[in-house]
Parts: sequence; C-alpha cells; structure tokens
Amino acid sequence: MENGGATGNGEEAAAAVAAWNFAPNEGLLGLTALSVRGVLGRVKAGMVEDGAARPVIPLGHGDPSAFPCFRTAPEAVDAVAGALRSGDHNSYAACVGIEPARRSISQYLSRDLPYELSADDVYLTSGCAQAIEVVCSALARHGANILLPRPGYLFYHARAVFNGMEVRYFDLVPERGWEVDLGSLQALADRNTVAMVIVNPGNPCGNVYTHEHLGKVAETARKLGIFVIADEVYAHLTFGGKEFVPMGVFGSVAPVLTLGSISKRWVVPGWRLGWIVTNDPNGIFRKTKVVDSIKSYLDISCDPPTFVQGAIPQLIENTKQEFFDKTVEILRQTADICWEKLKGISCITCPSKPEGSMFVMVKLDLSCLQDITDDMDFCCRLAEEELVVVLPGCAVGYKNWLRITFAIAPSSLHDGLDRLKSFCLRYSKPTK
Amino acid sequence: MENGGATGNGEEAAAAVAAWNFAPNEGLLGLTALSVRGVLGRVKAGMVEDGAARPVIPLGHGDPSAFPCFRTAPEAVDAVAGALRSGDHNSYAACVGIEPARRSISQYLSRDLPYELSADDVYLTSGCAQAIEVVCSALARHGANILLPRPGYLFYHARAVFNGMEVRYFDLVPERGWEVDLGSLQALADRNTVAMVIVNPGNPCGNVYTHEHLGKVAETARKLGIFVIADEVYAHLTFGGKEFVPMGVFGSVAPVLTLGSISKRWVVPGWRLGWIVTNDPNGIFRKTKVVDSIKSYLDISCDPPTFVQGAIPQLIENTKQEFFDKTVEILRQTADICWEKLKGISCITCPSKPEGSMFVMVKLDLSCLQDITDDMDFCCRLAEEELVVVLPGCAVGYKNWLRITFAIAPSSLHDGLDRLKSFCLRYSKPTK
Repeated sequence: MENGGATGNGEEAAAAVAAWNFAPNEGLLGLTALSVRGVLGRVKAGMVEDGAARPVIPLGHGDPSAFPCFRTAPEAVDAVAGALRSGDHNSYAACVGIEPARRSISQYLSRDLPYELSADDVYLTSGCAQAIEVVCSALARHGANILLPRPGYLFYHARAVFNGMEVRYFDLVPERGWEVDLGSLQALADRNTVAMVIVNPGNPCGNVYTHEHLGKVAETARKLGIFVIADEVYAHLTFGGKEFVPMGVFGSVAPVLTLGSISKRWVVPGWRLGWIVTNDPNGIFRKTKVVDSIKSYLDISCDPPTFVQGAIPQLIENTKQEFFDKTVEILRQTADICWEKLKGISCITCPSKPEGSMFVMVKLDLSCLQDITDDMDFCCRLAEEELVVVLPGCAVGYKNWLRITFAIAPSSLHDGLDRLKSFCLRYSKPTK
Repeated sequence: MENGGATGNGEEAAAAVAAWNFAPNEGLLGLTALSVRGVLGRVKAGMVEDGAARPVIPLGHGDPSAFPCFRTAPEAVDAVAGALRSGDHNSYAACVGIEPARRSISQYLSRDLPYELSADDVYLTSGCAQAIEVVCSALARHGANILLPRPGYLFYHARAVFNGMEVRYFDLVPERGWEVDLGSLQALADRNTVAMVIVNPGNPCGNVYTHEHLGKVAETARKLGIFVIADEVYAHLTFGGKEFVPMGVFGSVAPVLTLGSISKRWVVPGWRLGWIVTNDPNGIFRKTKVVDSIKSYLDISCDPPTFVQGAIPQLIENTKQEFFDKTVEILRQTADICWEKLKGISCITCPSKPEGSMFVMVKLDLSCLQDITDDMDFCCRLAEEELVVVLPGCAVGYKNWLRITFAIAPSSLHDGLDRLKSFCLRYSKPTK
C-alpha cells in the first residue's frame, strides 16, 4: 500500500518527531501568558475587523504613535534621518552605547537631579524592554529574589523568572493613590532580596508619586539593604497636580537604577532606544560589581541601532518644549474624557483619576454583570462584539480589573468608551 | 576626631558595601572573556593613539563600514529614511516582526532554495547577535547540550552557557578547508544533544563549504536526531571558486534554523536587523514546539526598530546587483593582498586562502619569536607598538592562532600587514 491512510501518516509523523532530541522548556512557553502583547493577542483572537464600517479602538497598548495628534516631533525625525544619512553610524557601537549619546542623556536627566550624572552612568539599551532584561539578568543569581509592585508590568516577572530569580509582590494601595504599601514591602524582604521595582509615573495605574512618598520608599530600601529599580519610561508625562520627581533624587539614600527611553515622551516606541542609568553618588553599584554585571550582560546582548544612538544629542537638543507641552495637554484632555465617561458606567469603578502615564486601572464589578466569568472573558467579548481592545487585569497581576489606555485621539476615545458602556449595559443584570 | 583617616574611611566604605544585599554572579562576569568586543577591549587597553601621524589599523572586527570603499548602497539608506519619514513605523511591532518585512525576507532567501519559504518562517531580530540569543534561549533546557565548531564564534558559547546549556566542541579541520570533522561531531552527541552550529561562509576561518560537505553534515545531523543552526550572516560574500550554498537546501534532511542579517552583505552592522528562518519543509520545528519556544522568547525580548523593519522590502528590492558585486570584488582583492603578504611573514602560517566572509585564521609559530608568551600577548604588544588590532585566537577557542580581518580599504590593509611584518621581524629569534 503506497499510502498508509490517515492513521498510518499520523503514526509516521509521531515517529518523525520522536527522532528529534527536543523537549521544549515548558517554563519558557508559560511566560507568554505574562506579556502584554501575548495577552492582547489572546484578547484579539476572536475579533473580526469589519473594515471601514467600525474601526478597532485600541485601548490596550500604551502606544498612541499611530494617531496624527500624537505624531512625533519633526526635529526628532530629522535627527535620526541626519545620523542615518551621515554614514558615520553604520558600524557596531560599544556595548554600553556611544559616548555622545550617553553624555547627552546624562545631561538631559541631570536637569532634574541635585547632582550631575556623567556619561559613564548611562548604558544604552534597545528600548526600556531591554533595559528590564539587562537589569534582571545582571542582578540574578541562584537564590536571589526581587520585589515587584502589584498591580505591575509583568515583563519584570517574566525576565526575572527566566533568569532564575524568585519574584515577590508588594501591594500598591488604590485608596492611597496607588502608593507602595511599605509594610507589605518590608514583610517580604529577606537577606536574599536584591532589589525592588517602582514604576513612576505609574503603569498600569496612572498615578504620580510625591517627593515625600519616594523619600519613604528610598529610606525603606536603605533599611532593607536593597537596590531600587525606578522605571521612569513615562517620565514627564504628568497632567494632574503633581510634578514628576525622579527617584534618582534619592540616589544617595539608596542606589537607584533608573530605566527610561525616548519611546513615550517622544511617542516613538518603535524606535527602540532606552537606557539604564546609575543614580548612585556613593558609588555602591561600582563597589558591589553591579556595574560590572551590567557591562558583562551588555557584552553578550544586542544593541540599539548605532545611527539612532548617533541621533540622540540632536534629538534631545532640538525638540521644542511646545511638542512636549502639546502631548501632555492631549493626555490631560483624554484622561478627563476617560474619567468622566467611566463614571457613567455602573459596573466599573475607578479609584482615582489618572495623573500621569497613559493608563488607568478600573475595577470590574462582576456581580452586576451576567454571563461574564472574569476579566479575560470580559475583554475577549468586548473585542469580539465592540472591536474595543482593553487589557484584562490578569496581565498586570490584578484579576478582575481592567487597564484602560486613554492615550489615543479624543474622538476615538469617546467612541471606544461609548461602545464599552453599551457593552456593559447589554450584559448588566436586570435590576429589580 | 572628625575624620578617621584613610583606614577608617576604608572600613566605612566596606561597611557601606556590606549593607547592600548583592553578590555578583561570577559566571556572568566571566562571560566577557568570551565576547569578541570584550577581548578586543583588552587587546586595545594599552594602545595609545598618536593622532594623524599613524592611524590605527583595525584588523580585529568584521566591520568595514567606516571605510568609504565599503559604504552601503544609497538605495538602502533611502529605504530606511523613507520608512522613518513616512511616520507609519513609529509604533511597536509584533514580536515576530512585521509581515511585509517577513514576506520580503522569505522571498529573498527562497531564491536560493529548492522550495518556497513563507513569511511565517521568518522571525526578525535585532541583528544576528539577537538571533543567536533567541535560538540559544529557545532551545535551552536543563541537561541539554549543543555542539559548536572549534574554532568558532564564542558568542554562541556565552549565550548557551548563560541559559544553562552544556557546550561541546567538534573540530574544524584546517588541512581540509576547515571542514567539519564528522567523526568528532558524532562522538560528542548523545540523547541530550539538541543542535549543532555550522557557520558558512566561515567566521573565523574564511572557508566556504561545498554542497557535498553540507549534505554530509545534514545526514549526520539526521542520524543524530539534532537540529542544525546555520549561521549564514556572511551569505553571498564569497570570492573563491565556491558558490555559497545555503544549509536550508538540506532542510528536508534535517530541520535547519538559518540565522542571517543585513549587517554584512549591505555593510551596515550598526543597523541591527537580523532574522531566524525555519528551513523545515517537514514541519518538525512546529511539531516539536521549537516554533512556540522561539515565539515565547521573542515575546519577552526587545525588537529591531519598526522603521528598519518597514524599510526591508524596499531595501531588498532596490539594492542593485552592482553594489553586491563591488563589495565582493574588494573582498577578493583584499583577500589576495592578505594571502600574499602573510606568505612573507615567517612566524605566521596560513593553512588555506580565504574564499568567503571577511576573515582568515593563521597559526602563530611561537618557537620563532622571543619574549612573546602567547596569542593574547602577541596581540596586545602589536596593538601597543604598531597600532594594529588583530583578534587573538583565544577569542575563537583556538589558542596561539590569530583571526585577521581583511575587510578594510586595500591601502590600509597593506599598511597594517607591513606593520605586522616589522613587528614579527623585531621579535624574531636570531637564526644561527
């Protein structure tokens, strides 16, 4: 018989597979569940786009760059195009980044600090994502643990666990503007705790921390003997009453690794230029070999494109304040729209008005809804039925909440939140 | 006493350090010794540049992009600048890369294959370095081992070890044009062997494998039940008698993960756009979840800039054959210069004329030299005294050999090899 039929072929296929010495790392496969894009992929799986009739409203990602009102500054484009056309930046870069870019970023960040950073304090990365990867890889060792905020950006979890670190969660308190629960933080730390992560302005919560609260966090870190990783990718995107205060201000209390990028303030997440900065006037990172560990990992890692590095001095120098002001003004408007509209949706509670970043966390009251099992189910149906994409709380470690991005064009935001409201009405339990 | 003096301060400093819960991962710190840039950094440490008087001759790195004769194609620059200026590529990309770029690369690579690749076979990475990182991370699991060529590019070693894989080396045979010693390969493999790496055109050896030899490698991999990782970052850079044959031609014999990038053929290593391609007509990678593992790792990794991805279709379509021909012609000339000049240096032996890539491996006869302890010592002194940078063999796992890059401007190459010759003469033992 030339063909063994379906069963025979199945057996042959199984045999063919068995001949190859590979068993996947199930731990790695499981990490997809922790990535925002992995989760959004699942949310969007059942969504069928209906062309121009009704556009998809993307309230899931923190990436407004596709909307004309969030178009990046022309000076930024010119800076990169100039560096590209010069032909001077086609070569490999040093693993820490090229000096003019490091110097430029050190000066840019020093404006908000009580001391001067040097070029040597700055390590360039391929976006803030790689900064997280590098920091988690450099700090990891057998038995070490790291303290992460809940709710939080699970990319930290994924990279820490991939490198064999244990992850422990401290709470952010919704009733206190998502401040760190310092008691829960202290209870978690032990002698194997290496560092804690603080995200300010907050993703996913849209909070902005005060100088006072950041000072308390630094004192706590000092007491515990742990480093602070300050994720400030949303730096300066604040539009409430509070000014952005960099954690580096407290670098002499506890050594701070500040992570940042041009992705958010310049609205170019696709350009992939980020940094790690040692805010550490006492030189603890050098003495404890954290600096050597970062350099070693960068030595075996990929780099951001050299010409994007080459563009940084011009990009920082030439971008006008008006551009930044305009972006913040739109975010202020869209945060207002979001806050007002969400108040009108009965099964959703928003504990505080967002004051920074591009997000707000809202609580889903499942007891008011019928046929919805959880946040993931809610988001999948919302995507399928209303073409509105929202991130389920499970993707930020906060079950049955939602993370809503308001950083999109105001008209689209109105549309998206209206659809969210009709969806909620449709699934509301009849009141007696 | 207000000031405890030097000793007291030292004690205080030690106490300050001890208060922070961090012990570096010594394994990570050791990996720097395995990176080309780490080793070149040590080679160049004692070098003092003397300005315009005598330029540094870089025969260490495979990066000729700074030389005007190796300037990239204007069409490539236009493609990237166009994608940047369009504003359509400022957003995050999908973790596997954007579809038009994946499709374009699949078509580009299919030209040399007996079957058609699809866009889904292509995963974009931040240069070939990240492709190596992704593949090593995706294939790693506890107890697994990987077979690497010696001499070879130790970045594989660093990434495999960092991910907990065991590394085993098979020999390349200098007397047989650096062919794989298939006997040594088979002796190394066991049931925990996941894959073998083959680099063609060869780095560091400058060899090009025949269709026949690659076929034998594929048959051996099939017999051993291991995947083939084909590093073809130097694809099409051949200038001897042999045509470049992609390993993917044998994808139905053994599944092949092909790694490549635009870095070398377009002479833009700083642009950081590479790929992993599944050459696997039988779908083994899908069945064994290698594909899922790659996607999972990409999900928690950084991406190449979206606008560079967006430029790929135009970059591939518009670059003229004359550009590629010109690059290969210069490499042919510089390989000739290298070969002829090296013949005139008595303490150096070159087993075969380079036919591809940008390198040649030469043997150092230490018995002819006085006051030189090993390859590292040779390279450090050469850099210090002659401002000529050459990679010591230890950086490619081949003690007391040298890797010489000939991909620089011909006049500089003449100059550099003349200096290498005077250096060798100066250190030659007097003959009786």
